[in-house]
Amino acid sequence: MSNTFGNIFRLTSFGESHGEAIGGIIDGMPAGIEIDDAFVQNELQRRRPGQSKLTTGRQESDRVELLSGIFEGKSTGCPIGFMIHNTHQYSKDYDNIQHLFRPSHADFTYYKKYGLRDFRGGGRSSARVTIARCVAGALAKLALRQIGVEILAYTSQIGTLALQNDYRLYDLAQAEENPVRCPDKQMAREMENLILSVKEAGDTVGGVVTCVVKGCPAGLGEPEFGKLHAALGSAMLSINAVKGFEYGLGFESARGRGSEQNDVFVNENGNIKTSTNNSGGIQGGISNGADIYFRVAFKPVATLLRHQDTLNTDGLPAAFTTQGRHDPCAVPRAVPIVEAMAAMTILDFYLLGKTTFIR
Amino acid sequence: MSNTFGNIFRLTSFGESHGEAIGGIIDGMPAGIEIDDAFVQNELQRRRPGQSKLTTGRQESDRVELLSGIFEGKSTGCPIGFMIHNTHQYSKDYDNIQHLFRPSHADFTYYKKYGLRDFRGGGRSSARVTIARCVAGALAKLALRQIGVEILAYTSQIGTLALQNDYRLYDLAQAEENPVRCPDKQMAREMENLILSVKEAGDTVGGVVTCVVKGCPAGLGEPEFGKLHAALGSAMLSINAVKGFEYGLGFESARGRGSEQNDVFVNENGNIKTSTNNSGGIQGGISNGADIYFRVAFKPVATLLRHQDTLNTDGLPAAFTTQGRHDPCAVPRAVPIVEAMAAMTILDFYLLGKTTFIR
Amino acid sequence: MSNTFGNIFRLTSFGESHGEAIGGIIDGMPAGIEIDDAFVQNELQRRRPGQSKLTTGRQESDRVELLSGIFEGKSTGCPIGFMIHNTHQYSKDYDNIQHLFRPSHADFTYYKKYGLRDFRGGGRSSARVTIARCVAGALAKLALRQIGVEILAYTSQIGTLALQNDYRLYDLAQAEENPVRCPDKQMAREMENLILSVKEAGDTVGGVVTCVVKGCPAGLGEPEFGKLHAALGSAMLSINAVKGFEYGLGFESARGRGSEQNDVFVNENGNIKTSTNNSGGIQGGISNGADIYFRVAFKPVATLLRHQDTLNTDGLPAAFTTQGRHDPCAVPRAVPIVEAMAAMTILDFYLLGKTTFIR
Amino acid sequence: MSNTFGNIFRLTSFGESHGEAIGGIIDGMPAGIEIDDAFVQNELQRRRPGQSKLTTGRQESDRVELLSGIFEGKSTGCPIGFMIHNTHQYSKDYDNIQHLFRPSHADFTYYKKYGLRDFRGGGRSSARVTIARCVAGALAKLALRQIGVEILAYTSQIGTLALQNDYRLYDLAQAEENPVRCPDKQMAREMENLILSVKEAGDTVGGVVTCVVKGCPAGLGEPEFGKLHAALGSAMLSINAVKGFEYGLGFESARGRGSEQNDVFVNENGNIKTSTNNSGGIQGGISNGADIYFRVAFKPVATLLRHQDTLNTDGLPAAFTTQGRHDPCAVPRAVPIVEAMAAMTILDFYLLGKTTFIR
Repeated sequence: MSNTFGNIFRLTSFGESHGEAIGGIIDGMPAGIEIDDAFVQNELQRRRPGQSKLTTGRQESDRVELLSGIFEGKSTGCPIGFMIHNTHQYSKDYDNIQHLFRPSHADFTYYKKYGLRDFRGGGRSSARVTIARCVAGALAKLALRQIGVEILAYTSQIGTLALQNDYRLYDLAQAEENPVRCPDKQMAREMENLILSVKEAGDTVGGVVTCVVKGCPAGLGEPEFGKLHAALGSAMLSINAVKGFEYGLGFESARGRGSEQNDVFVNENGNIKTSTNNSGGIQGGISNGADIYFRVAFKPVATLLRHQDTLNTDGLPAAFTTQGRHDPCAVPRAVPIVEAMAAMTILDFYLLGKTTFIR
Repeated sequence: MSNTFGNIFRLTSFGESHGEAIGGIIDGMPAGIEIDDAFVQNELQRRRPGQSKLTTGRQESDRVELLSGIFEGKSTGCPIGFMIHNTHQYSKDYDNIQHLFRPSHADFTYYKKYGLRDFRGGGRSSARVTIARCVAGALAKLALRQIGVEILAYTSQIGTLALQNDYRLYDLAQAEENPVRCPDKQMAREMENLILSVKEAGDTVGGVVTCVVKGCPAGLGEPEFGKLHAALGSAMLSINAVKGFEYGLGFESARGRGSEQNDVFVNENGNIKTSTNNSGGIQGGISNGADIYFRVAFKPVATLLRHQDTLNTDGLPAAFTTQGRHDPCAVPRAVPIVEAMAAMTILDFYLLGKTTFIR
Repeated sequence: MSNTFGNIFRLTSFGESHGEAIGGIIDGMPAGIEIDDAFVQNELQRRRPGQSKLTTGRQESDRVELLSGIFEGKSTGCPIGFMIHNTHQYSKDYDNIQHLFRPSHADFTYYKKYGLRDFRGGGRSSARVTIARCVAGALAKLALRQIGVEILAYTSQIGTLALQNDYRLYDLAQAEENPVRCPDKQMAREMENLILSVKEAGDTVGGVVTCVVKGCPAGLGEPEFGKLHAALGSAMLSINAVKGFEYGLGFESARGRGSEQNDVFVNENGNIKTSTNNSGGIQGGISNGADIYFRVAFKPVATLLRHQDTLNTDGLPAAFTTQGRHDPCAVPRAVPIVEAMAAMTILDFYLLGKTTFIR
Repeated sequence: MSNTFGNIFRLTSFGESHGEAIGGIIDGMPAGIEIDDAFVQNELQRRRPGQSKLTTGRQESDRVELLSGIFEGKSTGCPIGFMIHNTHQYSKDYDNIQHLFRPSHADFTYYKKYGLRDFRGGGRSSARVTIARCVAGALAKLALRQIGVEILAYTSQIGTLALQNDYRLYDLAQAEENPVRCPDKQMAREMENLILSVKEAGDTVGGVVTCVVKGCPAGLGEPEFGKLHAALGSAMLSINAVKGFEYGLGFESARGRGSEQNDVFVNENGNIKTSTNNSGGIQGGISNGADIYFRVAFKPVATLLRHQDTLNTDGLPAAFTTQGRHDPCAVPRAVPIVEAMAAMTILDFYLLGKTTFIR
């Protein structure tokens, strides 16, 4: 169960940072969906390393091959196998970390769990493996288009630089216009400068991604353990470096009163809506037709481009210096991954919801 | 999948607030565990309504019957069926809400999803159904005792009253000494007064529960979609009224630098540990042997003891006034539920972890 | 996973032969189905002990309580908990087998697996636990009625007495008219006499149940590991005492030629059908709209009403004599259980099939 | 769920007969197992087309690439992705069947299910996709070696030519010495001649594979819906062209008496065994330590090398003639597939069984 995501629309993935390939199988893709290859590839470009000076210099073409489940341009309902070859792995880069545990990486815990580990670039715990999620997310988006669901994520915080306004006050399409993926042009520039200065210092910095799902039909989500926000939370927390998830008012709601936060129903031209959306589009674990929005906190990347002290596998003091190709901030490239996980989750629950009635 | 929690240790539950009974089946309970009935019942007492003036006046004995899977005082490895009768349901209390959608409740979304709803007291979406979780959590705790895992949760925030210190600075056992379940006696009194004044006003207030898992062995958790913190997050987000989850430094980590947050390894008498625990005991989704800690945000309960405007099922304006038996704050009674969900999750991953090796 | 059956429509059950109750939870029951209590109870009567002189004398009222998930006579989409109290357990009947392993029962294997066992009447491995299947099967039948699916099983063989004709040549409704549940009146009488003579001798006898599913829509079943007949086979093999499953021509097909067995397509008033149905209504794991039929082999019940030699739990020679309440032949009472498992399987795949398309 | 097999040790596969590749992901492979590449490849050779004059002439090298989850020759516990390129697909061979439904193939049912189909060579329903099972089975065998489990299957019947003796009377290793995979040399020759004469006639013939699992520890299997034989049955019924499954005495047991079939316990040098093994090594769904044996019935392959009448997709009469590369009998090449499915099942339950106890 550990490498499979979803119930009906399911991604199972494989691959390590420095293995031959990253890939996966998407089972449960609805039949008859037109597969827009260029769109899928473009989603990969959005998370690709080397796309701007803010990201790692690792050069990967990240060309995806869709190997099955598609015939004459349409999904057949059969599983879609896919693969992305790793082309730029310099395994010798990692000789120096073979025998030590890098701080706040998964080296130690993998070793404790498995008794051995693939030390090349973090192995299975590398952020590189999220590429499989982007492929599945792209296909989910293609299916969701047919029911008018749109998913938009953006960078809302880098370090202490945080957007102060609600997502409704930004033109979210603007986020793709700058490398930091922040819809506020001025703030984007400040964030960019912050990341560059952090990079300069060989350090890293955290941030927050906000995600909005528009057009989600009411009625998605399952009581009691299949609540839609629990599934979204689990999806987001499975992304590397994520430390927190909140939806609607989130942690802020803990501070207030029910009388301030309850979303009052109003009749808008015959449609039942809520005048506010503190609930974040989900009530009792089920979507209510309003925008779903949530926030995802990322810690600073653990790989620093500077000297660090640690222990080796024998428990003796050791030190190492990482050089080269690492992101000073994971957040800009995480934006498409957040979208991908949201798309998979929403599609999964949409399909699951179809089983509620016999006809 | 919607009413089942867990992979190996699995709870499937049933029941509505005002039906005949709440119950469940625990599958995957390890064999040979001594079942301490009094302990199980006591865990239910901790979430029982009417336990203090801070909670709803609904009087339920909440007596659990364990119906199978136990023989001569020990678990047999077969499923444990259990049931708690509802004794205090006044369904007529709910006649006035039969035809309307209460704000920020699940009335509307259930109706949209299922086309009909059990309007008595929230039906399946009522917090009353969490009682099944406490039974399963109690059994999980009994199993975890054998490997020295202890789980302690407490109230760390009510409204704007928040404990400022780290959990390590409190004697967590003190939390059970006051009705608000806060380990700081002075703060507990303030929180209590806040809740009472909110209750007086017919309003409700939110808060935060912090939970600590001590003694968790290193190596629990599964890549890539079975990360331990993602499972904990999903578990917590499935609890009624929860709006956010964070572990380790959580959202705070987004503000800082990698050089400040990385947990440096140290050799403590031959054991490899970290000098700080910003990771919250989990790295790369796998436990590292340090304390696991996380925070869970609860919104204010949606049921207000005052007049509220809303719409009826025809979309026409309506109003209602709730009277009687409702909690002004869900947080104190949520503490044992948070523990229960954590216990189930940790046990599930412990058992799953046993399958990593052939011998 | 061991006590849960199904993917979308799922039964999780609990209970032992001589515990307090047998029960279960049905998750995934479609919403809005009228629940005919009398029909459900009647399905239990069909498997009830003591219904004729062919069966065990154990007297159980087998009255089912449906505890949740139903409101104003209709399913709500929420889980349906149910319970049947055991009223007639004489645990002392089992004192004599407490320390020994009965031949061809599960005493030894449970002991090897769990290190302890509930020795009262077979515990979880007793055929009594199949009662939960009949409840879930009855509910599945109520849902399937809405799409015109009908499931009919009957006794086609007892010992060497076997019906020679194809199911199409019998009026299957006649099966319920005699205690042996064979649609051929003359053969029914012979089978009845055989069972009574076997009972007289303190022995037991095996047999075969044939089951026919009429009105199953084309298109149910999932490649590659979710083939409809594989699910039916797994369902049937999970019934106590079952040793074999075959569908369509079954084992007979191994003897013949493709040119004889291929089902040729014909156009029947604009509908594409097959002129023969050697495939048993399933091709490539997916229903083709023709009748689905299959056969299930039952071994003779292991409990003999006579003296038997065995070993005790210390491996020393022991002997025992069972008295009283046991079926000389499981087959007549297994007929409704076969139907129940088929109904659950077909409904599950019908619901799953709804997820094939996005709209 | 449709393209995933197993609970803990899980194969998810993809690919169609005439797509680019067949492949899969094995999740849950125990860590630290030495991966003998040559052994894995050899298992594929055993099912390879073109291995003898009895099989299809399709020439495929069937070279497997293991893409992840292995490091320095050992399994890491991370998912093992693998791929086999299709090299010999002549899609134009299939132009003539594009618009018609071949009898007793899955053309019609796929079309009814998905509304479209990949008509090239059966697409996902082709027996070619079983190659992924052989890869996973080979890895399962490597793990099972460590606990001394050995799995041996052989051809026991072709058409009406059936071995009359029990498996214990043959040297099963002899089965690999002839192309038909029958351990009786004389019978093997007769079977071979039968298959060749059937081939000559452009016809096909069915048969039976018998499989024996030696060294399986007692205690594997799960009540109530996870019985070991139900899982084995489901696994076997998922293989293309399988119509029946029986274990132990199987259908024969339906004819007899309990007093003849009960397996009596005996003490063999301090070990509790049974003097007979009519149960087939499984009692109450749980292995008892004796040999597990079962039989799998295969129908004649539906593809005949002769003229056949059918309907086209418009329901109008059509005819076609298949030429070239098809097996006159699936049984010899199915032997390694049966073994593979058995190996996966036994390993899965062995790993699952480890979760029965907390320590």
